[in-house]
Amino acid sequence: MLDISTLTNKQIYLKNSPKDKLLEENFELKNSKVEDLKENQILVETIYISIDAANRAWMQGRTYRSQILPGDIMGGYALGKVIASNNIHFNIGEYVEGDLGWQNYSVRNENDLIKTTLKSSENLHMSVLGITGKTAFFGLELANLKKGETVLISAAAGAVGNVAGQIAKIKGCKVIGITSSDEKAKWLTNTLGFDGIVNYKNNNFVKDLRSLCPEKVDVYFDNVGGPIFESTLFAMNNYGRIICCGAVSQYDQAAPQNGPRGVPGLIVTKRLTLKGFIVMDFSQKEKEEAENTLLGWINEKKIIPAEDIMIGLKNTPKALIGLLNGNNKGKRLVKIK
Amino acid sequence: MLDISTLTNKQIYLKNSPKDKLLEENFELKNSKVEDLKENQILVETIYISIDAANRAWMQGRTYRSQILPGDIMGGYALGKVIASNNIHFNIGEYVEGDLGWQNYSVRNENDLIKTTLKSSENLHMSVLGITGKTAFFGLELANLKKGETVLISAAAGAVGNVAGQIAKIKGCKVIGITSSDEKAKWLTNTLGFDGIVNYKNNNFVKDLRSLCPEKVDVYFDNVGGPIFESTLFAMNNYGRIICCGAVSQYDQAAPQNGPRGVPGLIVTKRLTLKGFIVMDFSQKEKEEAENTLLGWINEKKIIPAEDIMIGLKNTPKALIGLLNGNNKGKRLVKIK
Repeated sequence: MLDISTLTNKQIYLKNSPKDKLLEENFELKNSKVEDLKENQILVETIYISIDAANRAWMQGRTYRSQILPGDIMGGYALGKVIASNNIHFNIGEYVEGDLGWQNYSVRNENDLIKTTLKSSENLHMSVLGITGKTAFFGLELANLKKGETVLISAAAGAVGNVAGQIAKIKGCKVIGITSSDEKAKWLTNTLGFDGIVNYKNNNFVKDLRSLCPEKVDVYFDNVGGPIFESTLFAMNNYGRIICCGAVSQYDQAAPQNGPRGVPGLIVTKRLTLKGFIVMDFSQKEKEEAENTLLGWINEKKIIPAEDIMIGLKNTPKALIGLLNGNNKGKRLVKIK
Repeated sequence: MLDISTLTNKQIYLKNSPKDKLLEENFELKNSKVEDLKENQILVETIYISIDAANRAWMQGRTYRSQILPGDIMGGYALGKVIASNNIHFNIGEYVEGDLGWQNYSVRNENDLIKTTLKSSENLHMSVLGITGKTAFFGLELANLKKGETVLISAAAGAVGNVAGQIAKIKGCKVIGITSSDEKAKWLTNTLGFDGIVNYKNNNFVKDLRSLCPEKVDVYFDNVGGPIFESTLFAMNNYGRIICCGAVSQYDQAAPQNGPRGVPGLIVTKRLTLKGFIVMDFSQKEKEEAENTLLGWINEKKIIPAEDIMIGLKNTPKALIGLLNGNNKGKRLVKIK
């Protein structure tokens, strides 16, 4: 039997709140002992931590979860395995998911954890079949895609964006992506089958966008907000839909900047619909169905999984900072065990 | 029979585009003769001109209609009567509607006009039963109001806002309005039955809004855009709906200012839906049904019609400028004949 007192837990804390861009010095690694389990508690060992732009937004204020403040263990969604249990519903060796935070071990109550059966490998479970893949799936469900429509996707090389693009292709749409480097652009078109890519770091971004979408944009899947959101608003077709999935351009800074011009004027004159959503709001049944559909597409080679995996807890700050700077291609994970 | 050559047509032209706020000197009144009717043409005499904030937006650029440029007759939706006709589908004495412009007479082709049967008086036909009343009606249809929800309405004393508020009361909602004077506030609560009013010209607008809506806002019916839109975004409930009907705060100026902060960040975290719409997009059948419902509510005294009627074509510039400054209570019309 496991002797809990022999375990050393490495934990990464938020040391101080970033004033502007997030830096490694905002974090602090500490070693601690693992506490003994109280009644009904479960000890979980972290396997994969999901790195998401939202992690940075959590430091800015209260969102759909409480703000992460200096002195808190850094939050992060993760896959883990039960290694000790005082709870009859959780057995040793079972997979669980939840906000396990940036640490090797965590003592949890039943309500903090979701029991999970893997339909595939651990990494696929955390990438295309995980929250980000399902986010892409549900976002496009809300968009009611019609065959032949033009779909524009920002942060196209990101975890959500690359899957959204591949799904929109499956649905028979023309798919244009927005990304930050020619190298990622090449990967998106050559490997993932995007129809075209605009590099927003080029000076003629708006002109490039217009020339790739002469028929204008029917659905914009927005992961970034900010100036790109503003530009695409002017490129929308009448009756277009904007799926508001995230605002990564606004997270890695102190306070939100000015909002996009054209809101709400262009929403009225173009009769646009904007929809914000969060994957947590969908039911377990809907999530199951989404996973099955996504897995089917992977098996049929219609979706190519794109993962960007770093190794070791100590690299999680670097992994998040890199993601905020657009260094990743596909889903960024940190493998802990 | 009418001798067309004896008619003098007074017409108001846009003389020069307003650089900032609209002024009377941007307009010019001219007299002209009425042209003879060509084949299939119809001569219409204007009865009521509808004064709408959108009239000012038309000078800023292309919207859902072409821009109004210096030298153009000022556009405006109006009710008129056929006084001469070379078209077998249009008979003398029949009512017609359309963008007749700011003038006494207009020679029109069939496609420019909608034949109209009045269900009520001419003025009611142009107010609660007209475009603005139907705009309030359809906007709230898109919002899917539930009994007991809190509905916030900007430009509450305006033509659309006052009707939207009265409809939301009929649907069993708590209705809070935003307006610009204590006098209008009193009228909205005492006469029209609003539950509360925030005067946005008060310094503590945001605090006042919060204290009137401690349970936060489920549906925001936005007629104004700009800083009020931004403030209300922060007052929205999760899963709230924002009906984007107009952006009057942005029309009477040179170029759109910065957009509202919180877009799209708060749209995501609060899972908001924003919907732009224009009454023209609804079918003739839907409009008929809306009119019948509105007329029923008027007859049952559930809606009190609010009209603000000025007399004489020469007063149309003043009527529009006043409306942009928030001087009207209810639907502003100019009676031409």
